[in-house]
Amino acid sequence: MPPGKIRKVAVLGSTGSIGVASLDVISKVLPLNLEVFGLACASNTGLLAEQIAQHKPKRVVIQDSRAAALFQTQAGQSVRVETGAEALNDLASDPEVDIVIMAVVGGAALEPTLAALRSGKTVALANKECLVMAGALVTAEAQKHAGRIIPVDSEHSAAFQLMKTGRTSEIRRLIITSSGGALRNIPLEDLANVTPEQALNHPTWNMGQKVTIDSATSINKALELIEAHHLFGLPAKSLAVWVHPQSIIHAVVEYADGSTILHASQPDMRLPIQYALGLDGPGRVPGCVSTLPVKTLSGLSLSEPDPKRMPAIALGLEVCERGGTLGAVLNAANEIAVDAFLAGKIPFTKIVSLVEEVMQIHKITANPSLEQILTADSWAREQALMRF
Amino acid sequence: MPPGKIRKVAVLGSTGSIGVASLDVISKVLPLNLEVFGLACASNTGLLAEQIAQHKPKRVVIQDSRAAALFQTQAGQSVRVETGAEALNDLASDPEVDIVIMAVVGGAALEPTLAALRSGKTVALANKECLVMAGALVTAEAQKHAGRIIPVDSEHSAAFQLMKTGRTSEIRRLIITSSGGALRNIPLEDLANVTPEQALNHPTWNMGQKVTIDSATSINKALELIEAHHLFGLPAKSLAVWVHPQSIIHAVVEYADGSTILHASQPDMRLPIQYALGLDGPGRVPGCVSTLPVKTLSGLSLSEPDPKRMPAIALGLEVCERGGTLGAVLNAANEIAVDAFLAGKIPFTKIVSLVEEVMQIHKITANPSLEQILTADSWAREQALMRF
Repeated sequence: MPPGKIRKVAVLGSTGSIGVASLDVISKVLPLNLEVFGLACASNTGLLAEQIAQHKPKRVVIQDSRAAALFQTQAGQSVRVETGAEALNDLASDPEVDIVIMAVVGGAALEPTLAALRSGKTVALANKECLVMAGALVTAEAQKHAGRIIPVDSEHSAAFQLMKTGRTSEIRRLIITSSGGALRNIPLEDLANVTPEQALNHPTWNMGQKVTIDSATSINKALELIEAHHLFGLPAKSLAVWVHPQSIIHAVVEYADGSTILHASQPDMRLPIQYALGLDGPGRVPGCVSTLPVKTLSGLSLSEPDPKRMPAIALGLEVCERGGTLGAVLNAANEIAVDAFLAGKIPFTKIVSLVEEVMQIHKITANPSLEQILTADSWAREQALMRF
Repeated sequence: MPPGKIRKVAVLGSTGSIGVASLDVISKVLPLNLEVFGLACASNTGLLAEQIAQHKPKRVVIQDSRAAALFQTQAGQSVRVETGAEALNDLASDPEVDIVIMAVVGGAALEPTLAALRSGKTVALANKECLVMAGALVTAEAQKHAGRIIPVDSEHSAAFQLMKTGRTSEIRRLIITSSGGALRNIPLEDLANVTPEQALNHPTWNMGQKVTIDSATSINKALELIEAHHLFGLPAKSLAVWVHPQSIIHAVVEYADGSTILHASQPDMRLPIQYALGLDGPGRVPGCVSTLPVKTLSGLSLSEPDPKRMPAIALGLEVCERGGTLGAVLNAANEIAVDAFLAGKIPFTKIVSLVEEVMQIHKITANPSLEQILTADSWAREQALMRF
């Protein structure tokens, strides 16, 4: 284990799958030299109690105020529990924190992410909505206050690494891969009759319900294209998706000179987490994820997506092109549509078409403020709810 | 075409395949902003005359003194021809030259490469023997005089690019690929009876005779492992070869954290040449080589080499481990053995076993001088000649 300063981490969204994986990396990969300074969750206080016992954080935030009060009663004096959005922002910008792992789900991550970046922190960003809803705002604030975003998901972490091989201006295309989702082998004409159970059966990744449906509709790739657009400053024409059922290759960069560079790894979220946490520290050290055997790299398939099967990709690229409040609209309409599908209110194929309908009638506000973004979000939810 | 200073290039070995490809890149890829300052060849004055007419170099060197005298007579006053080894060294270190393309074949490249590096030049190095025979010496001189080596072949250029994604200390392994050569599908027991014609029929690359036989015996991979060892400062245990018949993936870097990064491109020497020439200039610009279609990247095969079929790989790694004069010995013994095979004096399988025999009886001189390296070279040639 190398010497060096212990770096302090706040894990926001510690009881979700990324939060749990992050704590696994922090506790197992000792050369990272990390200490858990703060934990925050929405309401899963059972798991939080275990995490507190193991990591002994100085600060604990529970967003649900009733769950927080109950937890405080049970825990007694040993832990001081804070609650509410302000507590989350405060933890994210605590002067003692070096790295914020932003694993809060949904738009709730937006304000604490801005708070962290405005106080110049490194944010290991697993939340998609920050960049999808407010990418221009978030990246501008990061730049202004010397905050740093390191993406934490397989595709963008891979892309982040690959982009060190050249200048952004030299890139012809950044391509992110898609497993094709749970429904990739279902005939197109049967997609309308897909049940939530079928759509939730993802081939490679074990994720939450919303994310798994987003994968089945390929809206997740639309979201990821928008994130890549903001993270890497690449226009829509320099972004693409390839279908890759094995989920071993995560991103590909094509350069103007004819070079193609690919990133491959086991599909394990602990790798992008570890990369983000190690970058300003010891770098790449042996951790939780094993090297790919050559056999796994052989015979991998890559192909262009079928636009009929993955119409969401075009919507993502449209957001990259038109910008403004359109990302927030896509995201909000999709959340409503996914809920409606899971509740049996709309067929599977209606998810993306509903998102598209709401996008088409939206009047974009360019360079929106946070308030304008949240207004567009509410508007899109209302519009979506009116459509089933 | 971007503005910027015109950079002056000396192409040493201009009439060989790398020299011709280099001049093609210089004349076609205009944003590189390159001007041919000098040309040097061994004796192919017919092609040289065409190159002079097209590129109008200030200096011309013909190594063969008779060819030089004849050429001077024919060309008259319009060109001043220099000849001999000193002229080559002098061109390589000419104060007007920014970049030296070192495409001279064999040990003859050693002195002009050292001359160029000692005068602080960027050397686009296509010659293998410089690093195989004298890697420690050449890289030390480069460092001492702020000279820079940029490798010009598919594997090392790919590796050079990939290594920008992390620190050398983070690398688990650098893997270079091998097509397996012309004989990859011939049964092991038939290798002893292979004719020069069979061995010269390479599946992917169109190269000279010596290089094609080196590819069939896999000695080329031994040479490339030794080069990689010196270029990138990686020990034998961090170097490997994978068999990849399609020659699309050229190098692979495995990091300690479980990331694997791969470089792929059309098998076209103009890409590594262009990369080396662009690096300190406009970077990666559209050039002579087209981007790989996704179809070409799909279904590629990669596998571990069979040590019985490719015993030369172990010899290369032995040189990386033991160092000193052993690289010069491997190289010299191989040159004699390849000549003997092409002349029908020894069977195909004897090439590598002869090299191994000479290596095993060599008493290594550690940290050799150039003179000691050349002595080991001569000794190995004599030893090899005594063995058939």
